[in-house]
Amino acid sequence: MTPRLVIVGGSDAGISAALQARKTAPDVQVQVIFADAYPNFSICGLPYYIGGVVADWPLLAHRTAADIEAVGISLMPHTVAESVDPSRQIVWVHAGGQRQAVPYDQLVIATGARPIMPPIGGLNLPGVFMLHTIDQGRAIRGYLEAHHPRRAVVVGAGYIGLEMTEALAERGIAVTLLEQAPAVLPTVDEALGQLLALYLEAKGVMVRCRTRVASVERTGDGLMVHGMEGARFPADVVVVVAGVEPDTALAKAAGVHTGVRGAIAVDPAMRTNLPHVFAAGDCVETYHRLLRRPIYLPLGTTAHKQGRIAGENAVGGSRHFAGSLGTQVVKVFDWAIARTGLREDEAKAWGFAARTVAVEAWDHKTYYPGAELLHLRVTVDRTTHRLLGAQMVGPWRAAVAKRIDVMATAISCELTLRDLEDLDLSYTPPLGTPWDPWQIAAEVGQESVERTP
Amino acid sequence: MTPRLVIVGGSDAGISAALQARKTAPDVQVQVIFADAYPNFSICGLPYYIGGVVADWPLLAHRTAADIEAVGISLMPHTVAESVDPSRQIVWVHAGGQRQAVPYDQLVIATGARPIMPPIGGLNLPGVFMLHTIDQGRAIRGYLEAHHPRRAVVVGAGYIGLEMTEALAERGIAVTLLEQAPAVLPTVDEALGQLLALYLEAKGVMVRCRTRVASVERTGDGLMVHGMEGARFPADVVVVVAGVEPDTALAKAAGVHTGVRGAIAVDPAMRTNLPHVFAAGDCVETYHRLLRRPIYLPLGTTAHKQGRIAGENAVGGSRHFAGSLGTQVVKVFDWAIARTGLREDEAKAWGFAARTVAVEAWDHKTYYPGAELLHLRVTVDRTTHRLLGAQMVGPWRAAVAKRIDVMATAISCELTLRDLEDLDLSYTPPLGTPWDPWQIAAEVGQESVERTP
Repeated sequence: MTPRLVIVGGSDAGISAALQARKTAPDVQVQVIFADAYPNFSICGLPYYIGGVVADWPLLAHRTAADIEAVGISLMPHTVAESVDPSRQIVWVHAGGQRQAVPYDQLVIATGARPIMPPIGGLNLPGVFMLHTIDQGRAIRGYLEAHHPRRAVVVGAGYIGLEMTEALAERGIAVTLLEQAPAVLPTVDEALGQLLALYLEAKGVMVRCRTRVASVERTGDGLMVHGMEGARFPADVVVVVAGVEPDTALAKAAGVHTGVRGAIAVDPAMRTNLPHVFAAGDCVETYHRLLRRPIYLPLGTTAHKQGRIAGENAVGGSRHFAGSLGTQVVKVFDWAIARTGLREDEAKAWGFAARTVAVEAWDHKTYYPGAELLHLRVTVDRTTHRLLGAQMVGPWRAAVAKRIDVMATAISCELTLRDLEDLDLSYTPPLGTPWDPWQIAAEVGQESVERTP
Repeated sequence: MTPRLVIVGGSDAGISAALQARKTAPDVQVQVIFADAYPNFSICGLPYYIGGVVADWPLLAHRTAADIEAVGISLMPHTVAESVDPSRQIVWVHAGGQRQAVPYDQLVIATGARPIMPPIGGLNLPGVFMLHTIDQGRAIRGYLEAHHPRRAVVVGAGYIGLEMTEALAERGIAVTLLEQAPAVLPTVDEALGQLLALYLEAKGVMVRCRTRVASVERTGDGLMVHGMEGARFPADVVVVVAGVEPDTALAKAAGVHTGVRGAIAVDPAMRTNLPHVFAAGDCVETYHRLLRRPIYLPLGTTAHKQGRIAGENAVGGSRHFAGSLGTQVVKVFDWAIARTGLREDEAKAWGFAARTVAVEAWDHKTYYPGAELLHLRVTVDRTTHRLLGAQMVGPWRAAVAKRIDVMATAISCELTLRDLEDLDLSYTPPLGTPWDPWQIAAEVGQESVERTP
């Protein structure tokens, strides 16, 4: 009989698992169960759809449903997975008012994450939005087009908060960005966050850090966002993006073990503790390549990789997830901010003797027009001189995203400062410098660790 | 007594050696002997000066003479090193009509390369230029500004030939580019060279490959370039760029051994066979990291690194040159073409069981405006699945130069196709794809080597 692979979740991890399974074992029967109508959509693209750079939401599909079905994958949209019976190997689903049993030989749980609901009053008011799903994105854009708000408040200056800030500003809306941490984008060093805040202010965004929001209230002509310390920010629309948490209700009820931050515990093959049950994506723990232990680090790139591995292994493969470095980049107006590996504070918290060097360097020879200044930070282990992390802020046209990838590769390969100096990187005057910015940082770092080991 | 370090050559390798020596041993006395008036100038920048993007030649200095002297380095311009007496540790120089002995404790020979004079008749005619020195660059620009040529022929479609093609075209000159190989830029695979030729033609450049030049002759109103097979190309100015060869006359006369292509043989510490004599830059053999043997590979980045190592070791250091991968990038109009490591034909010639996969991939999600198609080629060892080389052609704004650096790093670290797939690279829709183009190539390559090992 044809083996049956059932996947719960139609986003990055789920569809990657389905595609990889079909590719690995073309005879396998693959069914993907998902609650909404949006298989394989790019959640990461929502801010661009909301901002209008992407004309309409169907464009956000990585692949259409027809593309997916064309390779022999069976899609079950509008289908809610209610429970898993691991002893009988059945997923109980609800669709079209009917309860139905979906039997499986192997199961991949890819239920993703859900937005954290912060303790803010008034989140249900009209004009107040959270952003995680395609439906939420459509609701925000619909609201913007119907009401033409003039003032927006974005609560939370993480990646999505920054992208939403740009999206709303590009629509001509005056944006106030609120962040409870001391600087925007708390995933990078405060010094870089402060630099970014200055840039945002220059772009006309009002940035307020160290600001916790107590509530949103309706006023005569709009909304009022109340800070804990009494500050008030008027708005016509409010977007709250306070991070995500793993969506594990289905898995936990079935007896799947969870670990860090309540995410599903998986082994390197993406197996859960239950036989025939794999899990991948934003609902699982992610093995960190440097820390050599699981953390919670939901990212699209990771979800893709984990999904592929779960899908391959569910049909007989034996591939292991190599681990994440938390490599991330965000574009905000003309800038990009990127990081990989560990910041100094993170590295120290995990027991590394970490030190960070900060450097500014030109992206290309200054005699060629358009040279841009890059702000770099490299974190190293003072004992081994091994690279632990890297951060960069600068104009995205100066290839910030791919520059961080060089460091992601170097860190994966356990390179030291000296190894980094020895790399044979490319150079031509309009696009680089003979001594690459990372190599300048490596040299400064080397002197720093030699001076005070 | 203060140790005396003498360096012959004031370009990348020589000045890097001087700076690194002063940094390593601040008490050392450093003298740099060079024949022209241009210490530490960017030869790589000449096409941009000739094209007019760089307003004037002094801007091409990486550092001014004053900058260099400010760190305690003594510059001896207009000084020709005539001979080295290794037994007495003296460099005999000629300057201002006078012969003079410059004693040294340690010597670094950084005499660079000189352009190959191809067997073409008429190279000395007015309006016919070679390009390697600042003086030659100034002569070309002077000629362009004085004579306003309408038609140019560039002989040789390597890196500098391509940059000169752009430079002349940007001045409104109709350019014909001649190359004896079957495609332009013979340092990359022919398929990519053909792609590039089509692009150049679309930019209005006439490209003729498989065309060897016999002679240049003066005609009534200009010049005529004669191909070996009878083709004729009229021109008002001709630029011949046929590669370089190591400039080793001084070294050889002193008894320094040479090796590959006549370049100075050095050990990993950049020592020659003579005591107290180091060498670095375009005049030396370069250790190739993958081949684990010396080849001749003159590049600015390598010259920098070798110079630093020679300078450090000349004052007591013990650093080794890790080797080159031949990483290179050139910008031509809006495109960049880059490579690192070995092409399939090169790898096979050196005994690798090499195979190349070719892939086209978008630089970022296509739903975000401005996505650009990249052309990638990855060469792997079919036996070990190790990465051997990578090539990329595409719009430079799509970060081609830094994308090749990711592969240069991966190849340095001896990664396999699977390791490449496992890398945690950055992603955001405007700047990348969740599955990076190199990872797409790795996946295709993996299937290719598994199918027919």
